[in-house]
Amino acid sequence: MTASGSGIGRSVPRVDAREKVTGQARFAGDLKLPGMLHGKVLRSIYPHARILGVDVSKAEALPGVVAVLTGADLLDIDPYYGHSIKDRPLIAIDRVRFVGEPVAAVAAEDEATAEAALNLIEVEYEVLPAATTMQAALAEDAPLLHEVEKLRPGLFHGLGELRPQGNICYQHTIARGEVAEAFERADIVVEGEYTFPAVYQYAMEPHTAVAQWEGDQVTVWASCQHPYLVRAELADLFGLPVTDVRVIVPYVGGGFGSKSYTKMEPITVALARKARRPVRIANRVDEAMVTTRRHNMVCRMRTAASADGTLLARQVSLWLDTGAYADNGPRVVATAADAAPGPYRWESFHVDAYGVYTNRPPSGSYRAFGATHLQWIGESQVDEVARRAGIDRVEIRLCNLLRPGEEVRPGGKPLDADLVGDVRKIAEALDWDSPKPPGTGRGLGVGLLAAGARPVSTAIVRLQADGTALLLVSTTEMGQGARTVLSQLVSEELALPVERIKVPGGDTNVTPYDRSTGASRSTTLAGKAVQRAARQVRDELLAIAGEHWGVAPHALELRQGAVWYGGKSLTFPDLIHERFGFSGGEIIGHGTVRPEAGKGSYAAGPVFWEVCIGGAEVRVDPGTGRIHILKLVSVADVGHAVNPELVEAQEMGASMQGLGNALFEEMVFDEGQILNSTLLDYHVPTIEDLPDAFISRLVENEDGPGAYGIKGVGEGALAGVPAAVVNALADLGIKVNELPLTPERIWRALHASDVPQRQEPIFKENP
Amino acid sequence: MTASGSGIGRSVPRVDAREKVTGQARFAGDLKLPGMLHGKVLRSIYPHARILGVDVSKAEALPGVVAVLTGADLLDIDPYYGHSIKDRPLIAIDRVRFVGEPVAAVAAEDEATAEAALNLIEVEYEVLPAATTMQAALAEDAPLLHEVEKLRPGLFHGLGELRPQGNICYQHTIARGEVAEAFERADIVVEGEYTFPAVYQYAMEPHTAVAQWEGDQVTVWASCQHPYLVRAELADLFGLPVTDVRVIVPYVGGGFGSKSYTKMEPITVALARKARRPVRIANRVDEAMVTTRRHNMVCRMRTAASADGTLLARQVSLWLDTGAYADNGPRVVATAADAAPGPYRWESFHVDAYGVYTNRPPSGSYRAFGATHLQWIGESQVDEVARRAGIDRVEIRLCNLLRPGEEVRPGGKPLDADLVGDVRKIAEALDWDSPKPPGTGRGLGVGLLAAGARPVSTAIVRLQADGTALLLVSTTEMGQGARTVLSQLVSEELALPVERIKVPGGDTNVTPYDRSTGASRSTTLAGKAVQRAARQVRDELLAIAGEHWGVAPHALELRQGAVWYGGKSLTFPDLIHERFGFSGGEIIGHGTVRPEAGKGSYAAGPVFWEVCIGGAEVRVDPGTGRIHILKLVSVADVGHAVNPELVEAQEMGASMQGLGNALFEEMVFDEGQILNSTLLDYHVPTIEDLPDAFISRLVENEDGPGAYGIKGVGEGALAGVPAAVVNALADLGIKVNELPLTPERIWRALHASDVPQRQEPIFKENP
Repeated sequence: MTASGSGIGRSVPRVDAREKVTGQARFAGDLKLPGMLHGKVLRSIYPHARILGVDVSKAEALPGVVAVLTGADLLDIDPYYGHSIKDRPLIAIDRVRFVGEPVAAVAAEDEATAEAALNLIEVEYEVLPAATTMQAALAEDAPLLHEVEKLRPGLFHGLGELRPQGNICYQHTIARGEVAEAFERADIVVEGEYTFPAVYQYAMEPHTAVAQWEGDQVTVWASCQHPYLVRAELADLFGLPVTDVRVIVPYVGGGFGSKSYTKMEPITVALARKARRPVRIANRVDEAMVTTRRHNMVCRMRTAASADGTLLARQVSLWLDTGAYADNGPRVVATAADAAPGPYRWESFHVDAYGVYTNRPPSGSYRAFGATHLQWIGESQVDEVARRAGIDRVEIRLCNLLRPGEEVRPGGKPLDADLVGDVRKIAEALDWDSPKPPGTGRGLGVGLLAAGARPVSTAIVRLQADGTALLLVSTTEMGQGARTVLSQLVSEELALPVERIKVPGGDTNVTPYDRSTGASRSTTLAGKAVQRAARQVRDELLAIAGEHWGVAPHALELRQGAVWYGGKSLTFPDLIHERFGFSGGEIIGHGTVRPEAGKGSYAAGPVFWEVCIGGAEVRVDPGTGRIHILKLVSVADVGHAVNPELVEAQEMGASMQGLGNALFEEMVFDEGQILNSTLLDYHVPTIEDLPDAFISRLVENEDGPGAYGIKGVGEGALAGVPAAVVNALADLGIKVNELPLTPERIWRALHASDVPQRQEPIFKENP
Repeated sequence: MTASGSGIGRSVPRVDAREKVTGQARFAGDLKLPGMLHGKVLRSIYPHARILGVDVSKAEALPGVVAVLTGADLLDIDPYYGHSIKDRPLIAIDRVRFVGEPVAAVAAEDEATAEAALNLIEVEYEVLPAATTMQAALAEDAPLLHEVEKLRPGLFHGLGELRPQGNICYQHTIARGEVAEAFERADIVVEGEYTFPAVYQYAMEPHTAVAQWEGDQVTVWASCQHPYLVRAELADLFGLPVTDVRVIVPYVGGGFGSKSYTKMEPITVALARKARRPVRIANRVDEAMVTTRRHNMVCRMRTAASADGTLLARQVSLWLDTGAYADNGPRVVATAADAAPGPYRWESFHVDAYGVYTNRPPSGSYRAFGATHLQWIGESQVDEVARRAGIDRVEIRLCNLLRPGEEVRPGGKPLDADLVGDVRKIAEALDWDSPKPPGTGRGLGVGLLAAGARPVSTAIVRLQADGTALLLVSTTEMGQGARTVLSQLVSEELALPVERIKVPGGDTNVTPYDRSTGASRSTTLAGKAVQRAARQVRDELLAIAGEHWGVAPHALELRQGAVWYGGKSLTFPDLIHERFGFSGGEIIGHGTVRPEAGKGSYAAGPVFWEVCIGGAEVRVDPGTGRIHILKLVSVADVGHAVNPELVEAQEMGASMQGLGNALFEEMVFDEGQILNSTLLDYHVPTIEDLPDAFISRLVENEDGPGAYGIKGVGEGALAGVPAAVVNALADLGIKVNELPLTPERIWRALHASDVPQRQEPIFKENP
């Protein structure tokens, strides 16, 4: 049996293109249900306060108001959630821990009434001392965010024992060998303290949820990336079996991690429960910004090398500000730790990573978390080693990079990528060996991201009697093209045109279990489940045809929606007719992915190492400090590209988001209050900020664990950009240890005599 | 491996009971969509006319009217449908063929406006000669309903070549041996001409459909029994792949065949297409009565026997009035032919059955079609043979009934029921051998219904991480308890309490293919697919547990939502955790039923022979002719009762509907116009009409083709009742050959000296 192979490797147009460009695609916010109310949330104005009383009587009396929810309405349930640590009530109960925390929610006939009612709610607060920075939170007499001994693990903590302590939410250490000894031996030691800002994911669509109860069952339409994890947390919160909770995910207008895990859904469900009517809550952008964000970080790193540039050891301490609630903080901490050593053959390394509770809005997932935080730091130290050793910056990497099959982290998956080849591709695209035009700097950065998340995905393929197919898979289409590439995998297996394959939206009652949409996992893991489901269907088609012609299935060929034997063919409708005796029936296949041992194992974690690599050529305006990106280069080490144009679009999108992280973006807080929650004040990259040239190279070594050797992309390019830009600046002699690389900062660096040094370290000693 | 067996054989409460008694169950008519319009249908006032023109301008000008649909709007599609014969336009194009045929449809903001707009539509008709009775339709110079040479087979005609001729829509002959020779030899010949009235299924919920287009895709919520056949016909009509048509079936408020196949859906979809907004059309009862009904019939039958009561031969001609369009007429004709000989060991028989087009509303499926039409006739002749031979009426049956394994019809499935045992149970329940109280008559009737329809069903079972399960199956829950018994089958296979199993409603995008809900097939066929799906899940659970303990699956036991090995157990959540490494993932199983050969084969048809059996003890008021039912007896020869109380409820419901058919119900037409389209004029059985005693006996010989030897029930009791009552009357000397047995008819029979004879036969000769 051979398939035609027409499904993958081709840049077919997105299957959702027409729906989207004609405005027909529906998002959660477009949903209208009969009797649906509009919910608005009253938010804390203090970073830390005790709630002494909430008087909702005036709000309830406002005509058009149907229900007002407060913590007092949650007495019949266990209202705490958090997939990692159950530290968060779905609405504040006795205390608020950040500016923006929901204190009450109003459901009214229209949005204006709900908004008006918020002003009628009277909250009596007792203001408490706040720890609005990590420094404050880690001080000896710091106010404590949580009674840590009462914290319970969430449903999906998945990180071994959680032992929060004081304001340390989570800590993670990875180590190999004896670091101290290596540093003693080293000829070159580079060290520094670095800061990474809080940034916002800025998906076009802010968080939106609609909840409708029917009896003891609840349906939630949500702009969420992980419907199954949301379902589980809602079931847990409201004491329901999971089959009584239905989570439906229409198209999602961008996620980037901001819609990972559970966000607005619990409060919406609780408000609908009280109102006894469907309720819709749609965040404004400023509300979305206090719902989730990327962790700001402080990091101390030192790197040891011998005089010839051989990397010896690295020691890292890093503190990530997870805000008032853990959200995905523990995983970000662990992934940051994994990213800290970088992709090199170390004798020894030691990384201590901490997540810190502060009285700031909670931080969670953000595309390429951990890697983005760390890679620019580690790679700038590698560049500095090269400079001090007097060797080329590409050369030092080629010498020290891990080779495929080598251990990356103790006990983890060995390297499954050709990093040397990838770096050579970046260098080539940057014309590394050609002379630089005057005033330009070149830099590159390479790293690894522990990707794939938990390898649990399922899919169902239903081939219909007219030869069209339904693909049921819970991957969230959030702009990345998931429905297209997953259709292509079915197309490949069944030799069926993509347009004959429909992919309904995610719906836990319809589309089977998928752990999550994130961590670059969908094409690799959901895709493998899809492939297996499609192969069940294919095998059944071949069996029917084989029976018909009295030949073994391997003698048959699948091509153009038909099975062929010599010059004879039976179309899929023919075969279904043959099987069922009439023009009905369907052929069902299902596929499952789970932690699997053996070849291509992804039991040990990560599922695969996503290559984070980028290169940049920059120029700096010495008068303003403004950075001009002449060339941005990415390499998509993707294993096998299902849809090359979509891969390139992912690379470009991630690179631009990386530019935002590197150059512009920073949430500015004053005593825990965001000061820049509009696009006027918060600069995301625009068309004006595009690099003069963007080059994306594809590497298809078929070394991934997915179907056809696929591995994920879409995050790595992001992490590569800050590293590349920082190193390109250093190539110009501009050394920075804080992001973003604002013109002011660059100007100051340009006009400083050396690396700008703080007066004293941010932390006096490791907490 | 053994399962606990707690799932089946128990009368667990209906899983939908709470939803229904609390009014939370949603039916198609309850649906409200944003922007939904209300549709009303303008219907023909003539039984046969040419449409010269339709002026909708005034209607379109009425404020609130959004669209008016006429035949002129269908130029871009092939507007003819009919699953058996494509003879019907979805709205009249150039001609109307019955009083009530849709001529135009209005979509407006509310029902009142739509209704008002109907009055503003001006239709110019040229009245044509009409054939409003079968006699008229079969007359030599009858007006022809259709140009039969242009008729095309429908998507699911499934009855070999259709050769409509004149006004004969379909004809079917079954025969064995030489009838004429047997009649020459016979000592006893009983013969007569019989009529059966048009009756209405009278589901509580009239037909309702809501259609919503999104781009080129359409979603239809419909009160339909067969969502997949509706989907196929809609896709065919509107030129779409089936995956672009989604048919969702909420709870259905009774079907009884009235919602078999495609009814209101095409006109609703076409109106929504024109209005470019969602449209809801809900029939009133009088509109539902012209949408479908049971065929009225004329039958000539003669039965030959030897002097000792041995049945020799039977000859039957029957004409079924299918109205203006075939609908399911051909299948009714074939099934009536199958039922005509009755369940006896004939030397020879010959049945000619005809479906006749007339200018009356179309006839379709109605619970126990064919069998109900014929059984009372054949069984009354058997009783008459017994009387003339001087032998007991039970005895004559015991002697002549087929035994298991004997051929029923040439080439068909051999008998799979113990009819002798069934008849004995009826006799025993009627105290047959005890003296009758004075003035009472006893009768019984036995027959066979070719049941199961086409054996094509699929199901998916999805076991979730918390040990609850979703059962995806497209059987329509229309009050019969399908979701309950199908849950019980999963419960049985997985040893999981019924309340842990959820069965979402039918939805072609969610629940996989099922041919139809009817022909007593669901528990048997959908149930077998469900069993197979559940067994896949069970096998996977056992495999995981076996791996865990290092033992073979057959050493394990499944009980109480867990797998047991000796005293140790692993719950389903444990096992799923074991498989996926965390509290997520799911185990999927799917099952398929298709025509299968070998043991328990149902390739030859029917899938099984449903036993139609009933007994009655009656008294008659000689002054009024009113029949009093003292006792009604049914035997449910069900193979294996999944839920005995639901079986009994089916038996009682079917028996009461049989009483309605026997005693009261008749649609009265005058020139094709129904005269009694309200409950005031059309008498369905009420609480007042209950028999004094109802006895239902269960037979569980495990001789059916379903899981655990299940075979279907729910129709047979209906067909048994008219036969039993007619024979009980004959036992009192009251011989009738027309249904219903109205007091007037009985009074006339009581006061006639002999069997009432018509002046001349209805048909002079066989057409």
